Amino acid sequence: MNASLLPYLTQARAPLVREVGVINEFGEQDTVSIPAERALTLYVDRRELVTLMTLGAMPELLVLGYLRNQRLVRSVTDIESVTVDWEVHAAALKTRSGIEDREARTAQRVVTTGCGQGSVFGGLMDELDAIRLPDQASLTQGQLYGLLNAIRLQETTYKSAGSVHGCALFRGEEMLMFVEDVGRHNAIDTIAGWMWLQGPEVQDGGDKVFYTTGRLTSEMVMKSAQMGIPIVVSRSGITQMGHELAQRLDLCTVGRATNKRFLCYSAPQRLVLQPELAGPRLRA
Amino acid sequence: MNASLLPYLTQARAPLVREVGVINEFGEQDTVSIPAERALTLYVDRRELVTLMTLGAMPELLVLGYLRNQRLVRSVTDIESVTVDWEVHAAALKTRSGIEDREARTAQRVVTTGCGQGSVFGGLMDELDAIRLPDQASLTQGQLYGLLNAIRLQETTYKSAGSVHGCALFRGEEMLMFVEDVGRHNAIDTIAGWMWLQGPEVQDGGDKVFYTTGRLTSEMVMKSAQMGIPIVVSRSGITQMGHELAQRLDLCTVGRATNKRFLCYSAPQRLVLQPELAGPRLRA
Repeated sequence: MNASLLPYLTQARAPLVREVGVINEFGEQDTVSIPAERALTLYVDRRELVTLMTLGAMPELLVLGYLRNQRLVRSVTDIESVTVDWEVHAAALKTRSGIEDREARTAQRVVTTGCGQGSVFGGLMDELDAIRLPDQASLTQGQLYGLLNAIRLQETTYKSAGSVHGCALFRGEEMLMFVEDVGRHNAIDTIAGWMWLQGPEVQDGGDKVFYTTGRLTSEMVMKSAQMGIPIVVSRSGITQMGHELAQRLDLCTVGRATNKRFLCYSAPQRLVLQPELAGPRLRA
Repeated sequence: MNASLLPYLTQARAPLVREVGVINEFGEQDTVSIPAERALTLYVDRRELVTLMTLGAMPELLVLGYLRNQRLVRSVTDIESVTVDWEVHAAALKTRSGIEDREARTAQRVVTTGCGQGSVFGGLMDELDAIRLPDQASLTQGQLYGLLNAIRLQETTYKSAGSVHGCALFRGEEMLMFVEDVGRHNAIDTIAGWMWLQGPEVQDGGDKVFYTTGRLTSEMVMKSAQMGIPIVVSRSGITQMGHELAQRLDLCTVGRATNKRFLCYSAPQRLVLQPELAGPRLRA
C-alpha cells in the first residue's frame, strides 16, 4: 500500500483510569481505580453518524475499524483523515470522495449483538456466505498456551481498574496488537482499524488468531470472519448463535481458555491437539 | 391500573440452553450446555423497528421494556398487544393509537452503552436532569447481604451454561423478579417491562434495588434512574461515566459485591453500614 494514501490520524490521548473514593464492607474509606468511559461522537464528512462509548485508548483506530466493520468504506485509502478532539468528544472523519449510498446503508436499524442491543448496519448477514476462511489455517495446542501466557503477562487497565474487555491479534503465539475498551465491540473494531493500516501480510487475517476476554456471541464470530480470521480464542464461553455461525463458517472457536484449560466448540480440525502439554488432570 | 387496559401478551417459549459437543485440553470429546441466542425483530404497528439478540426467556416483557426504556411509548396502556412468534423470530407490537413523532424519535442514532455500541434513541440525556430519586431511600448492609444470598441461591442458566447476564429487582432483600439474557441491557429492559405491568406500588422504583451481574456503565446507571430506582448493586465494577452519572443523580452504586465484600462508589448515605456483619477480615 502506498503510505502516502494512508489517512492522516491525530494521536488524541486521555487518561484511561481515574481514582475514586469508595467505602468498603468494613465501613472504611479507600480509593480504587476505575476505567474511563467517554462519549465519542463520530462525524463523517461533517454529518453525525454515531456516538460510541469508549475507554479512549486508541480512538482514531476505533473510528477506522468501526467504519470498516460496518462496511461503510471499502478501503482505508478512501479515508483522508481522522481527527479526534477529546475536548469536544468528537471524531471527524473525512473521506476522499464520500460514502456511496450513505442513506441506504445507514438506514436499516439494527442487526445486533451479544451485548443484546449493539448496532450493525444492515446487510452483514448477507455477506456471510461469501466468506471463505482458508482450509489449512491451524493453531497448535502449544501455540495456544503461548498465546494465553502472553495475555497473562500483558500490562492492562483490567489489572489496575477492572471492568474493561481486552482483545488481541496473534500470529501463532506472537502478539501483534492488544487493546482494551469498555465495550468488547469497540476493542475488536480498534484491531480491525489497526490491521487496515498495515501491509498486506498483516491485513490478511488467514494466518491470524483473534483473542477476546468477551463471550463468543454471533457478532463477535461474524466480525472475526469478516476480518478473515479463522480462529478465535476467548476466556469466556459461547452462545448458540455464535456456535451456529462458527460451524457454518468453519471458524474454530476456543472458549473457557485460561492457563492450560480450554474447550474447542467448532472446527476442531484447526486445533492441533497436544494433550501431553495439558499437564496433570485437576479435579474441579 | 385497570387490568382490562393492560396489553395482551403471548407467552412464547423456547429452549434457553442447548447441548453441544466440545473437545477439551486432554483431547477428549465432551458435551456442555451453552445459552441460546436468537434474533427477535420487533415490528411496531407493522413497521420494523429493531432486531434484538436475546436469550429468549421472556420476549414479550423484553419488548415492552425496550419500548419503555427507549421512551417510545408513554404508558403501558397505550399498547394493545405483543405477539411473539419464534418460528419467524418476530415480535409484533400493536399500539392503541400509534407512536407520536415516530420519525423524529427514532432518527437520532445512537447515544450508546457499556457494551460500547448499544443503541438508545436520542434525547435520554436531556431527561436526566428531570429525575429526582427519593432522598430517604436506603438499604442496610444486612439487607444487602440478604440480597446477595438470594442471588446466590437462584437457579440460573448462568450456572448451567454460563455466558449470560442476570438482573434482579428487589425490595429490600425480597427478590421480586429475576431474569437472564445474553445482553445485560435486554435483562434490565425485561425487568422494566415487567414493572410496567404491575400495580403502582411495584411500578414505583423508589423503594427498590436493582441488581445486575454486569458492569455499572453509564447506560446501566441511566436506565436505573429512569426506572426511579435509587440503589444499584453489581457483581462487577463501575466505569467513569457510570460513576459520574450516579454522583450527579445521587444514585447509590455498590460494586464488586459477592459474599460479604463490596465497594460503595456513590451516594454512601443510602447504605446503612453494619460493619459488624462483614465478618473476619481476610487477606486478599
